Amino acid sequence: MTRPAHGLFLVYTGNGKGKTSAAVGAVVRATGQGFRAVMLQFIKSGKRVSGERVIAERLGIEVAALGDGFTWLSKDIDRTKQLALDAWERAKGIIAGGEYDLVVLDEFTYPLQYLWIDTREVVAAISARPAHVHVIVTGRAAPDALIEAADLVTEMREVKHPYQAGIPAQRGIDF
Amino acid sequence: MTRPAHGLFLVYTGNGKGKTSAAVGAVVRATGQGFRAVMLQFIKSGKRVSGERVIAERLGIEVAALGDGFTWLSKDIDRTKQLALDAWERAKGIIAGGEYDLVVLDEFTYPLQYLWIDTREVVAAISARPAHVHVIVTGRAAPDALIEAADLVTEMREVKHPYQAGIPAQRGIDF
Repeated sequence: MTRPAHGLFLVYTGNGKGKTSAAVGAVVRATGQGFRAVMLQFIKSGKRVSGERVIAERLGIEVAALGDGFTWLSKDIDRTKQLALDAWERAKGIIAGGEYDLVVLDEFTYPLQYLWIDTREVVAAISARPAHVHVIVTGRAAPDALIEAADLVTEMREVKHPYQAGIPAQRGIDF
Repeated sequence: MTRPAHGLFLVYTGNGKGKTSAAVGAVVRATGQGFRAVMLQFIKSGKRVSGERVIAERLGIEVAALGDGFTWLSKDIDRTKQLALDAWERAKGIIAGGEYDLVVLDEFTYPLQYLWIDTREVVAAISARPAHVHVIVTGRAAPDALIEAADLVTEMREVKHPYQAGIPAQRGIDF
């Protein structure tokens, strides 16, 4: 398999919809081209079965929901924080290991934003990755240092959102 | 299967990367939740095998590349335009038919932008769709009338792009 000279580091940030969907799409494309891809979800818990997890299992793609569904609104903030730290330890090992061609850190900006995880350590770990590894980080409000380190950054900007009109999250579209 | 009261009409626009990836991700999620999804690609030709097409075939999702890879730069502009018109006729039938729960019109803003297809006709067709049908349109510079008609609009804004740094499109990431 032809591999690029160096894997890319992509960031999908902003307050609009489509960040995780774009990462799911990237995983699917990469898998279709024979790459090995893994998706680590930092906020989502394993309780709600997402559409991407069903398909990932069918395709043999690893999607690990490592959060508890909560962020800074958690009732047990110490546990939520610890889950994020554990997930990052796992992510670091996976990035450094080079077993996967594409590693997605989904909704990873949140623990950075809350300063639970040190962004400098993250930038160092991503920068030191094996040459063939692509990394995608998604989540609102990516820290400047992360944007600085990335090769490609897209801001998903919310122009119009149906929840403004009172339409709830929909299975098959939102998860 | 529980269906929402009315399907959503989503637009992913802007000059940044991630629009088609987000649509691919949406198709995957929808399929994982038991929805029937189809992706009509208005610019891509069937010549280059994309990662999403490989996976779609594996999952039994229809991805139809209906363009010739060209836009207004086409050497045979009449043919390129006719392909877009034919693709739209097909899309109209699929949207109205209600066989699919999610219909993606990928890179569909381009023929609208060139005025090859009448945006008012498109808005009318999408507005008249069966209640369970979700529609996603992707592409730069979505016409105002399309944004007006949509339930959800995200602008993928380019913050940083590796091609600025001379890195070419990469298999497994860009297609």
